[in-house]
Amino acid sequence: MYNHFGNALRLQIFGQSHGNAIGMTLEGFPAGFSVDMEALQAFLNRRAPGQGAHTTARKEADSPEFLSGLLHHTTCGAPICAVIANTNTRSEDYVNLQVVPRPSHADYPAMVKYGEGYDGRGGGPFSGRLTAPLCIAGGLCLQYLQTMGVSIGAQIVQIGSVKAPHFDPISPKIPSEYAVPTPEMLEEIASAKADSDSVGGCIECAVTGIPVGIGSPMFGGLENRLAQILFGIPAIKGVEFGSGFACAEMRGSEHNDPYYVNEEKQIRTRSNHAGGILGGLSTAMPLIFRVAVKPTPSIARAQESVTMDGKATTLEIKGRHDPCIVPRAVPCVEAAAAIAILDAILEAKQWT
Amino acid sequence: MYNHFGNALRLQIFGQSHGNAIGMTLEGFPAGFSVDMEALQAFLNRRAPGQGAHTTARKEADSPEFLSGLLHHTTCGAPICAVIANTNTRSEDYVNLQVVPRPSHADYPAMVKYGEGYDGRGGGPFSGRLTAPLCIAGGLCLQYLQTMGVSIGAQIVQIGSVKAPHFDPISPKIPSEYAVPTPEMLEEIASAKADSDSVGGCIECAVTGIPVGIGSPMFGGLENRLAQILFGIPAIKGVEFGSGFACAEMRGSEHNDPYYVNEEKQIRTRSNHAGGILGGLSTAMPLIFRVAVKPTPSIARAQESVTMDGKATTLEIKGRHDPCIVPRAVPCVEAAAAIAILDAILEAKQWT
Amino acid sequence: MYNHFGNALRLQIFGQSHGNAIGMTLEGFPAGFSVDMEALQAFLNRRAPGQGAHTTARKEADSPEFLSGLLHHTTCGAPICAVIANTNTRSEDYVNLQVVPRPSHADYPAMVKYGEGYDGRGGGPFSGRLTAPLCIAGGLCLQYLQTMGVSIGAQIVQIGSVKAPHFDPISPKIPSEYAVPTPEMLEEIASAKADSDSVGGCIECAVTGIPVGIGSPMFGGLENRLAQILFGIPAIKGVEFGSGFACAEMRGSEHNDPYYVNEEKQIRTRSNHAGGILGGLSTAMPLIFRVAVKPTPSIARAQESVTMDGKATTLEIKGRHDPCIVPRAVPCVEAAAAIAILDAILEAKQWT
Amino acid sequence: MYNHFGNALRLQIFGQSHGNAIGMTLEGFPAGFSVDMEALQAFLNRRAPGQGAHTTARKEADSPEFLSGLLHHTTCGAPICAVIANTNTRSEDYVNLQVVPRPSHADYPAMVKYGEGYDGRGGGPFSGRLTAPLCIAGGLCLQYLQTMGVSIGAQIVQIGSVKAPHFDPISPKIPSEYAVPTPEMLEEIASAKADSDSVGGCIECAVTGIPVGIGSPMFGGLENRLAQILFGIPAIKGVEFGSGFACAEMRGSEHNDPYYVNEEKQIRTRSNHAGGILGGLSTAMPLIFRVAVKPTPSIARAQESVTMDGKATTLEIKGRHDPCIVPRAVPCVEAAAAIAILDAILEAKQWT
Repeated sequence: MYNHFGNALRLQIFGQSHGNAIGMTLEGFPAGFSVDMEALQAFLNRRAPGQGAHTTARKEADSPEFLSGLLHHTTCGAPICAVIANTNTRSEDYVNLQVVPRPSHADYPAMVKYGEGYDGRGGGPFSGRLTAPLCIAGGLCLQYLQTMGVSIGAQIVQIGSVKAPHFDPISPKIPSEYAVPTPEMLEEIASAKADSDSVGGCIECAVTGIPVGIGSPMFGGLENRLAQILFGIPAIKGVEFGSGFACAEMRGSEHNDPYYVNEEKQIRTRSNHAGGILGGLSTAMPLIFRVAVKPTPSIARAQESVTMDGKATTLEIKGRHDPCIVPRAVPCVEAAAAIAILDAILEAKQWT
Repeated sequence: MYNHFGNALRLQIFGQSHGNAIGMTLEGFPAGFSVDMEALQAFLNRRAPGQGAHTTARKEADSPEFLSGLLHHTTCGAPICAVIANTNTRSEDYVNLQVVPRPSHADYPAMVKYGEGYDGRGGGPFSGRLTAPLCIAGGLCLQYLQTMGVSIGAQIVQIGSVKAPHFDPISPKIPSEYAVPTPEMLEEIASAKADSDSVGGCIECAVTGIPVGIGSPMFGGLENRLAQILFGIPAIKGVEFGSGFACAEMRGSEHNDPYYVNEEKQIRTRSNHAGGILGGLSTAMPLIFRVAVKPTPSIARAQESVTMDGKATTLEIKGRHDPCIVPRAVPCVEAAAAIAILDAILEAKQWT
Repeated sequence: MYNHFGNALRLQIFGQSHGNAIGMTLEGFPAGFSVDMEALQAFLNRRAPGQGAHTTARKEADSPEFLSGLLHHTTCGAPICAVIANTNTRSEDYVNLQVVPRPSHADYPAMVKYGEGYDGRGGGPFSGRLTAPLCIAGGLCLQYLQTMGVSIGAQIVQIGSVKAPHFDPISPKIPSEYAVPTPEMLEEIASAKADSDSVGGCIECAVTGIPVGIGSPMFGGLENRLAQILFGIPAIKGVEFGSGFACAEMRGSEHNDPYYVNEEKQIRTRSNHAGGILGGLSTAMPLIFRVAVKPTPSIARAQESVTMDGKATTLEIKGRHDPCIVPRAVPCVEAAAAIAILDAILEAKQWT
Repeated sequence: MYNHFGNALRLQIFGQSHGNAIGMTLEGFPAGFSVDMEALQAFLNRRAPGQGAHTTARKEADSPEFLSGLLHHTTCGAPICAVIANTNTRSEDYVNLQVVPRPSHADYPAMVKYGEGYDGRGGGPFSGRLTAPLCIAGGLCLQYLQTMGVSIGAQIVQIGSVKAPHFDPISPKIPSEYAVPTPEMLEEIASAKADSDSVGGCIECAVTGIPVGIGSPMFGGLENRLAQILFGIPAIKGVEFGSGFACAEMRGSEHNDPYYVNEEKQIRTRSNHAGGILGGLSTAMPLIFRVAVKPTPSIARAQESVTMDGKATTLEIKGRHDPCIVPRAVPCVEAAAAIAILDAILEAKQWT
């Protein structure tokens, strides 16, 4: 029912995959900020398909048109609305999906929920397409955060059986050299594709420069906010902070991060198992989290499914699909993080 | 800044660990529901300390007093407010914590955030105590969900190096026999305690009986909502649904859940890697998720820390603390799930 | 900072008067509703200028383009986004307004608030133009309410010194014959125009068919909600329900509405001084309210003003402006009422 | 369904008139603020009954107990919860009201809405009692606003046929000498009481010292926010700003407020028909508004009513009731204004 996020910032995303346009509105973004449109487009290009062997062959321009909120590329204080017109869609690819739900897609519960009127073409409002407006909003927030000294970078730490090193939790290198897949990862993806299959992965994100004390107790902590927005990226099935699930095997004496005073007379911790968050609040340390990305559900193999009126059938998904969504999800994770963190930082200003 | 959760239901939690009282307000709970007070107290008792070798020696009655929202134990439609008075606290245990932040607690960022007025006694508003009002709200929601045929049960799947079997993802047994620690788990906890240490763990939760199509795309999906509230439980550092992080190594042909028609002519999936959620919406399958619980940060060993004015020091935490918070977190996870799911179910009614 | 309204429904309006487009997003509108596009356009035409001697000479098509939320004119459950492109604007008319605030417009506080980036052309985000997207959202809600038996109609009860009869508070006639100005009212407007001046007025609105018990106590009552959205219509300076300000002179014995049982065995009141709302909740009686509309601040006369850097000056407003905004505000009032009431009705479904 | 208000501040009010306690939670109030408890009690006393011939004979202590959010009378950053225990109630006075709705009270729609579980004793959650927690929250906000140079004062401008002078809209005198009823007003009230009747009135409020540019366009303007909270005070049936409904008869040349530069080189307006708000934003001028207060619906005369199962009957209301609620509503109006304005001021900090 609701597609909005945030408190001081308020983001809403709209659009169906094959509708007239997709887009977003963003309220509460500070006025008087000059947007670097080229940098924004470059950021969006990182998410766009058709840029490598590992992505789908579709080529979407994904050039946002700003309908409101800007005057000569500077934010004017009014809500920002940006849209991307849908031009290159081939709805015929999806025709039989209207009646036969694709495994691991939202088709089945969506058809039950919305009934006959549902626009499920290309995944409708559940499509990965909707991360394009997420990246517009996130791209704006990233630029604004940069002026505050906050840096955000994500990297690929796993695709299938291929793993890459983690960020240094004390001083992560942003941008990481693993923001794009390694040759071994590309091979893993190509191998899945050759098998008419797909493959999942894991993305790690680091954020530096957040002031101490951002976030709120209980339901407004940074973990709560980040998790809420990150699960808005389709295919994300897990979120963990700092040591994450590994903490289940750890002892307190090992997991606790001892405080010390560094050479700049700042209070810091020697380790960073907390991932930069305690009690939902930012500590002085880098914020570190990981997300699990499921394998693309659209695969070229025949799959067992049913018709909505309850008959067994076999489904073959045509269309063009990424055998691995992980590389394109990297900027989406950065975008989501930027939105959640700027929201929390702006909100904290009401106290100062 | 904000301690509230929910949309159709609206939960707010208040209180500091050693303040006059802790409590919660809950708006939007249906009127005319007769609360089983004994069952509610029994549920709260599962969270209370002092009930086994693995928990702290404090004994808190944790008997809620309902200030509003009930008439003769029946909800009257007005916002529900319930409080638990604080009686058995020993603030002197915490005196030096006011100036020396405890590692892996919220003390340091909270003192920076709130400044001199901050009430950090016993962890202040970041204390695990605040899960008591969460369990009051969750206990009410659990009772209401039962009348709708929704069952929620959590179990311990790991404490330190000891693991227990997972739920059957197709037909989970609720309540699980692992809702309380096994003897091996108790031994793991006792071993940590003997070492003046603590240990973490992992909790799994299953929910059955949710109607198909509950939740919303993007930011209002069940994963988003559950994650937002679950990270409100102190010590939770990771949340994953279905196969979770394991999906990173999987292929689509393996992870996808094929549809079939069962003997009752219902559309179901043969496997349940999705954990009962697709596109943020409930499918017909059990909802399955896991949370990572970090080791209790309060340990009896001396720890390296600093004074807030920047001098190195050593901290010894007195007080009474659980060497493992996992067993007491089990009902908290059930409570959080109940609140998020009832919220989503009530919200969905506006469409029907 | 925020331009959204509603709880079960969530309306956001965006755009600046002379920006690329104005528009709205609407979440939570029920899926599967077939929109009558002709009726919607006819409703929007009632707000459009250029339709009589009393309105401005501009001709705006005001034809909404739906970017999302519809499939073949039927709501699909996804958030609805509709925009109106700005084509016929003459920004040069407004150039000197950038530095000289117009009396009784938002220019001065907006320039202070938003600073240099502010887009004040044509009133920017404070323009009456923004009521066009309000009417799109309201037009959809009006159509949906009709299917529930709820009727909404507004009428002009005063323009300057010319008054018209009030609705019968027991059985108001909707639509009223006073939904458009009488010849005497048009004369009053023409007289103001001839004087290079403008004139204010008063609009009354009646709503029938609301089920009993819609709304909430305290801050979520129908009066609270209606007032919140109605003051979103520029130029509204007062809102009163039922007897309104006249109740200040009344005695309880006169103002109280006695209950009786009518011929259909329904509980009704003999009078309706409450305007159909008690304790914020709908009674069985017609909901009646009035709004005060200030005279258009843009007048052709020279006015005393200042430059933003503090020098006295004289301002002459060119551009084309309605000498009386009241007739065009009538559908806006109906739209606002429809949104607030449908929001409250959908929200109430959570309880049933 | 919902009893909360605000965005940066978040106020929730709970309780039924004859329940265990009434109270409020307030999130987002700045940390480190030292509350003057005596001043707060003095403010609450202005609302309390039993202080003059014109009020009810009940004596309620109305001393708030703070359960959370304070440490030694200083706000600690956690949500504030304060309650007032209900001690002096005589529920037997209200017994037959359970089945016979009182005219112009919320009884009838509330019984339909909430059904059998409804706690209507003393008006339940619709009672004027609930303005006591409103005044606790408002009292805190008033104290905080004072430190920012914002002053709020309300006065009685009408009771029945007796009128008092209005505030000077350019430099209102706060507190007004009309914050309490004049002897003529007391006589009007006594006369109504002698007739077993009640009488309504009108309250005017002035706020000085608000910075320029507070509020938002459309639905977040100061008028929208103030109206939303003011209609939460039971018995308020109208709200108008500046000239209010009088603007219906005015011409633009008369209503517009010309700008000039004063001796302190500040931009101000010569008149203040706008009541200090343009486009929802604060101008430099005093904020002025009026509210209409209906006559107390509880009168000692026999009234026509019905039983809930549809039989005609006559109702005699016993209990003790104010013949005029206006004097006690004065501090409630100040409290409501303080909450709405502090909320808007804190929210505006996100931009600076």
